[in-house]
Amino acid sequence: MTLAVAGTLMQTPAPDQFTVTDAVVEVDATGAIVAVHDRSTPEGAAAGRAALDAAAERVELAPGTFLMPGMVDLHVHAPQWPQLGTGLDLPLERWLFEYTFPLEARYADTGFAAAVWDDLVPTLLAHGTTTAVYHSSNHLEATTALARTCARHGQRALVGRVAMDHPSGTPEWYRDATASEGVDASAASIEAVEALASPLVEPIITPRFAPACTDALLEGLGELAESTGARTQTHCAESDWHCGYALDRFGTTDPAALDRFGLVRPRTVLAHADHLTTDDMALVSGQRAGVAHCPLSNAYFANAVFRVRRALAANVRVGLGTDIAGGARPGLLAMCQDAVTVSRMLEDGVDPALGAAERGVPASRIDTATAFWLATAGGAAVVDLPVGLIEPGRRFDAIAVRADRPGGTIRLWDGFDDEARIFEKVVRLAADDDISHVWVDGASVKP
Amino acid sequence: MTLAVAGTLMQTPAPDQFTVTDAVVEVDATGAIVAVHDRSTPEGAAAGRAALDAAAERVELAPGTFLMPGMVDLHVHAPQWPQLGTGLDLPLERWLFEYTFPLEARYADTGFAAAVWDDLVPTLLAHGTTTAVYHSSNHLEATTALARTCARHGQRALVGRVAMDHPSGTPEWYRDATASEGVDASAASIEAVEALASPLVEPIITPRFAPACTDALLEGLGELAESTGARTQTHCAESDWHCGYALDRFGTTDPAALDRFGLVRPRTVLAHADHLTTDDMALVSGQRAGVAHCPLSNAYFANAVFRVRRALAANVRVGLGTDIAGGARPGLLAMCQDAVTVSRMLEDGVDPALGAAERGVPASRIDTATAFWLATAGGAAVVDLPVGLIEPGRRFDAIAVRADRPGGTIRLWDGFDDEARIFEKVVRLAADDDISHVWVDGASVKP
Repeated sequence: MTLAVAGTLMQTPAPDQFTVTDAVVEVDATGAIVAVHDRSTPEGAAAGRAALDAAAERVELAPGTFLMPGMVDLHVHAPQWPQLGTGLDLPLERWLFEYTFPLEARYADTGFAAAVWDDLVPTLLAHGTTTAVYHSSNHLEATTALARTCARHGQRALVGRVAMDHPSGTPEWYRDATASEGVDASAASIEAVEALASPLVEPIITPRFAPACTDALLEGLGELAESTGARTQTHCAESDWHCGYALDRFGTTDPAALDRFGLVRPRTVLAHADHLTTDDMALVSGQRAGVAHCPLSNAYFANAVFRVRRALAANVRVGLGTDIAGGARPGLLAMCQDAVTVSRMLEDGVDPALGAAERGVPASRIDTATAFWLATAGGAAVVDLPVGLIEPGRRFDAIAVRADRPGGTIRLWDGFDDEARIFEKVVRLAADDDISHVWVDGASVKP
Repeated sequence: MTLAVAGTLMQTPAPDQFTVTDAVVEVDATGAIVAVHDRSTPEGAAAGRAALDAAAERVELAPGTFLMPGMVDLHVHAPQWPQLGTGLDLPLERWLFEYTFPLEARYADTGFAAAVWDDLVPTLLAHGTTTAVYHSSNHLEATTALARTCARHGQRALVGRVAMDHPSGTPEWYRDATASEGVDASAASIEAVEALASPLVEPIITPRFAPACTDALLEGLGELAESTGARTQTHCAESDWHCGYALDRFGTTDPAALDRFGLVRPRTVLAHADHLTTDDMALVSGQRAGVAHCPLSNAYFANAVFRVRRALAANVRVGLGTDIAGGARPGLLAMCQDAVTVSRMLEDGVDPALGAAERGVPASRIDTATAFWLATAGGAAVVDLPVGLIEPGRRFDAIAVRADRPGGTIRLWDGFDDEARIFEKVVRLAADDDISHVWVDGASVKP
């Protein structure tokens, strides 16, 4: 069934750049975008009219509602959803062992898992997350169920069973018993997700992070990635402790160590990565891997701010992640706000006792357009999915945001707000309740 | 008319401390809290039952809905409401001259002012802001209208006409023509607000900040504060530029300069103040003035993070401010999240190129309880209003927050969330739509 959507399209084809188009988007029966007609020209207006007339389904957005690309959340710990908002005054080690691991261990209970997935996935869709890259738990059944839930609710997703076997970095009641069991279960999870044959959901190989994995497990998962071609994800160079650990154990930086195991590959998602050195950035860029920048979670657990501008200048692919539950705001519009905020804090520094020149890192700030680009096209490029922009050849993953919902906080004032201000207000102020439409692969999936 | 409210009361009597009580709150006909009955004891349960039976109006909150003190926003620029969310990638000087001053100048139009006030005040009430400390514009009529709007919607408020006359710090099209005109208009505004005879609304003397005011204006306003006893507010030591300006012009820190003009007084609200020196903190504490900590706005315009822990240790009164529109999240629950987040960033630092020991300021982090205390009891103490805690002798300014709204993001899981986690989830995750009840002075005022 073909679809045509008419309205004001706002999107970000590149960092620092946003465009506004009075558009009709034409979508074919497979969910692919066939054309974007610009109604500001007579030809475009006519073609748009024709597309609307021909479409089996047409949506004409009201003035004050804006069509935008759906967002790509590169880092979601699905099993941590029940702990969202808690324990965020703790250091990472305590947070993991007191909150996170005991919770994740509960997903051996498939009924519990099903209840959580069935709440999480539609909630993220409602927040405009049309693609999510999930860490599941280390349970095969729960992980397959998560993939099935995404397919059922119509969310595009990469779903990874977490592998972790290190006797000192994990609790004995929540780990793979041996490296080979971890590799075998990862392979089985790839097969189980692929067996769903969903056009939306793919597997992703997921060693939790080097401190939770033995060399044998890391090596086995690198080989699995090579043999299957599946994507990979892991936490990378997240904190001082994490970096120091890698240096002690491997004698090198964390990304260099991961690379030795074949785990820095094209389409690899490296979560956090805020401590990347210049050499690390060259490695990540050269391998065509990318970074899930998690601005809010990093404030809690990463000891520093990811240098977005420097990474982009080094040709590192970068997108955004909520890092649920380390980041306790479940949508990427919120992360756009936070990405801008922490970039300003990186630029200016934090300690008033220091002089201005010693305090920050000049030229670190990003604007709202760059943040939204990270949340859409940037993230799509990291995982190499044809989404993140509304343009011919990509899939129609999109949202519509109302700027005029009673009870909302977006306010547009006639004669006062130009396009740049409208875009900034929508990205910075929209709540999930302002998102009126959500499409994935051309299908309406708003819960 | 008497009121009794029954439910689970969560509040923060002191920093780092939260309490949970199964309570019946008894409110007299004037809006004062008469008793808080703790139903966990047989006597308290009986007294609570009796209070409910005797009350003219009773509210029994459902399980999963939590009674909390209303919040005190110490710093709101009311006329900046239409620009919320915009221009936040600009430096302060451009933001003021390109966005803020042109907008504020429009409040000469009383019809425009009325439309904005009538939108802003109920929106803030809906976000749980039961007390707001407002900077209005420099227009007498618009300022009186703002006070009238607060009284009509039932919001407790301090309303200040902004005084600013400095020829180089303000545009000629938006300033007081002379210092004496600024003082006279400030005096007239005090009288106009007091003439409303509202029990909820009081005036506050409001020199914008030293760079926008001549010595004669600052001196005149200090004398006005002394002669009238009215509260005062101003921006203080907000940015590197602001501090350097004070040093150049006055040969001293900004707070010390303000103090010379008699503008650091009991109940004075010093907005931002993130660059206070140790001596400044002693001055502010000794004068019984206080700080409006604006964690989000400070990330944009203040060049550093306010050191909450150090200020509290120095006996400085501290509360929270949104700094609308510098802070583009219009409620204080959001500011609680941000206050915790920026305190973590102050503790850990931001620049990954620095060693951990050189990067941050140890022992700076605050927890969620401290943040909520700042938003309630802390802010109430700054302005010396009998609110911020639900206890006998204070006014009944309160909110109720639903943790179970369909479409909300708070999730409580049986057998998993203890009281500390519930409190943290509610404060960190509640959206304005989760706030089911708002009372000010014993009256229900939810829009």
